[in-house]
Amino acid sequence: MNDQPIDLRTALGRFEDLWSPRIVAHVNDYDVRIAKVAGDHVWHAHEDTDEFFLVLDGELTIALRDDEGERSVTLPQGSVFVVPRGTEHRPSSPAGASILMFEPTGTSSVGDRHDEIPGHVDVTTGHALR
Amino acid sequence: MNDQPIDLRTALGRFEDLWSPRIVAHVNDYDVRIAKVAGDHVWHAHEDTDEFFLVLDGELTIALRDDEGERSVTLPQGSVFVVPRGTEHRPSSPAGASILMFEPTGTSSVGDRHDEIPGHVDVTTGHALR
Repeated sequence: MNDQPIDLRTALGRFEDLWSPRIVAHVNDYDVRIAKVAGDHVWHAHEDTDEFFLVLDGELTIALRDDEGERSVTLPQGSVFVVPRGTEHRPSSPAGASILMFEPTGTSSVGDRHDEIPGHVDVTTGHALR
Repeated sequence: MNDQPIDLRTALGRFEDLWSPRIVAHVNDYDVRIAKVAGDHVWHAHEDTDEFFLVLDGELTIALRDDEGERSVTLPQGSVFVVPRGTEHRPSSPAGASILMFEPTGTSSVGDRHDEIPGHVDVTTGHALR
């Protein structure tokens, strides 16, 4: 995709949209995506894939819901977490954050099942970084 | 693997070995690994997989060699790069760096073909983070 390194801060400076991931790299049949987020995403689940989160800036909370009930994890800047496949989750960030995700190419931002999608959530498999 | 987030700085504080990746997360059949590096790694190539690098601290240079010749890319902190499969490469960092990698579980740190391995390079598919 790119024969030169990409500076993530520069890349994050190229767009303002929230909950609208940009693809910064392809690794085999996986994408590396970055997103700016603020407020709440939507409850959703990916049936067939885990989803990796790294917080680049700010703080992200991920609410998780499975057979054992509901809980949430908080990721400060510089921390990582994997949402296991099939686990309902809702990322949120009251104060805003920038995040990096790894997931298979074609993975939808709202998963395979989800609550009603609010207008501020972009339904996408990731946009090209321009 | 973990039901709580992992802070990468804390994780990096748990080991001192250079060129000896620790696995911080599994994403499907991929690993997320972190490593401390300084000096030169060894020329090697992964025949069947791309390899993703993110520089967490410091600066990493990756020398690259393919049919078109030899070149190098320099990754400052916060930048990313993918070494395409089959491309001979040698990471190095004169002043030291901490890096994050994303690659299929089982990928060797010295690839499928490599120059003679110096004593300071750990031949591993990644160690558990303790």
